[in-house]
Amino acid sequence: MHFTSEHRLDDGLVERTFTLGEIPGTLWTTGSAPAPLILMAHNNGLPRTDARLVARARLTAANGCTVATIDAAGCGDRPRSPAAEQARAELRRAMRAGEPTDEIFESLVGPLVANAVPEWRTALDALLTLPEAAGPVGYSGWTALGIALAVADPRIAAAGLFAGGYVPRAQREQAPMVRVPLLFLLQWDDEGNPRQRALDLFDAFGSEQKTLHANLGGHLGTPSFEREDGDRFFARHLR
Amino acid sequence: MHFTSEHRLDDGLVERTFTLGEIPGTLWTTGSAPAPLILMAHNNGLPRTDARLVARARLTAANGCTVATIDAAGCGDRPRSPAAEQARAELRRAMRAGEPTDEIFESLVGPLVANAVPEWRTALDALLTLPEAAGPVGYSGWTALGIALAVADPRIAAAGLFAGGYVPRAQREQAPMVRVPLLFLLQWDDEGNPRQRALDLFDAFGSEQKTLHANLGGHLGTPSFEREDGDRFFARHLR
Repeated sequence: MHFTSEHRLDDGLVERTFTLGEIPGTLWTTGSAPAPLILMAHNNGLPRTDARLVARARLTAANGCTVATIDAAGCGDRPRSPAAEQARAELRRAMRAGEPTDEIFESLVGPLVANAVPEWRTALDALLTLPEAAGPVGYSGWTALGIALAVADPRIAAAGLFAGGYVPRAQREQAPMVRVPLLFLLQWDDEGNPRQRALDLFDAFGSEQKTLHANLGGHLGTPSFEREDGDRFFARHLR
Repeated sequence: MHFTSEHRLDDGLVERTFTLGEIPGTLWTTGSAPAPLILMAHNNGLPRTDARLVARARLTAANGCTVATIDAAGCGDRPRSPAAEQARAELRRAMRAGEPTDEIFESLVGPLVANAVPEWRTALDALLTLPEAAGPVGYSGWTALGIALAVADPRIAAAGLFAGGYVPRAQREQAPMVRVPLLFLLQWDDEGNPRQRALDLFDAFGSEQKTLHANLGGHLGTPSFEREDGDRFFARHLR
């Protein structure tokens, strides 16, 4: 793990970028004291420099967690495969034409999740060697990746998942194997995530402790108090 | 309004009972300073002395709200009408026999809600003359009564509603007229409240700000953190 930059932010947080082989990442800490670690990922692999992800990460770190994100293989700023680029173009075309998109979505997001999992686990190995990331470990964000990581890696102790109307087949099948406490957050009128599919996914999770939060409005309309609720969820399970 | 008893509790709260004509009630305050008022009612009119209602009221009062509850007409310890007693017996019989209960439920709970509304409004008139109940006013608890009160009384500024799988026809029809911020809490496997009906009710509310919370488990299994979430909801809207 090689740190490539370090900035002290106005609110006292330290924001560092790092590389781990080909994987670029960002780490936010309040200092050097041991703290729970939150892995934060954006839906469908948007770049780790996305303004909303960064704002969310900083607020959660300011609450006393160490927060980390990476651009995993095929995600964010990392090179995209020709197959993924073709699927993206095909997805745009099908949406414009009003055609079914499930299979195209599957061919795009299925491999994205599958390729991201080992890289997030590599990042987790490295992050847990840092004194300021003592664990336990929470996951926050992209539902499909959260399912895959929670099933693959027993170090994930709690997960906050967002949206979840479109999730690849493999992760829908894995949902009953998820056993960690869950906070599942959705927007009631999410234009990109069919409500019933998200509710069915919530129903399918194997966790004994699972909580659903839903708010009126579209995909980008999540009220700010939900981030605070998410922090309290992690505080209950990681401290 | 006539106070009939006063106790100072171990946590510093003052618990007083009162009568207002035929209406008996209980009031919890932290002191004499003006505070938001929460009207707290139990599903289908269980007595105001019910241990779970009292525990919830005290915790919310300890958070700095004035909390009041009453036994309205036909509810709690108040005399029950012969028609209601007959409906209750018929409901028990139909449930044992596995027969449909919607119409029996309607004949029992419809009048219960209709009769309770004017008495809660009378109580609200009186409560708002107290220096320690300055308003604004929140409502917490029984979904059907909360809908009817929020539609009938513009002084209700926010409502936290529980369950809501069985709600009388009149209140289902009123749901789109509810405009105040809502926190709608349900248990995912509530044995007495069909999930889909509760979700349909959430969908029907006219409020621009509405939040759904759902947790795994049966009717009595609500996790304790939901009371704290409710207090934060009221703090956002009543302070």
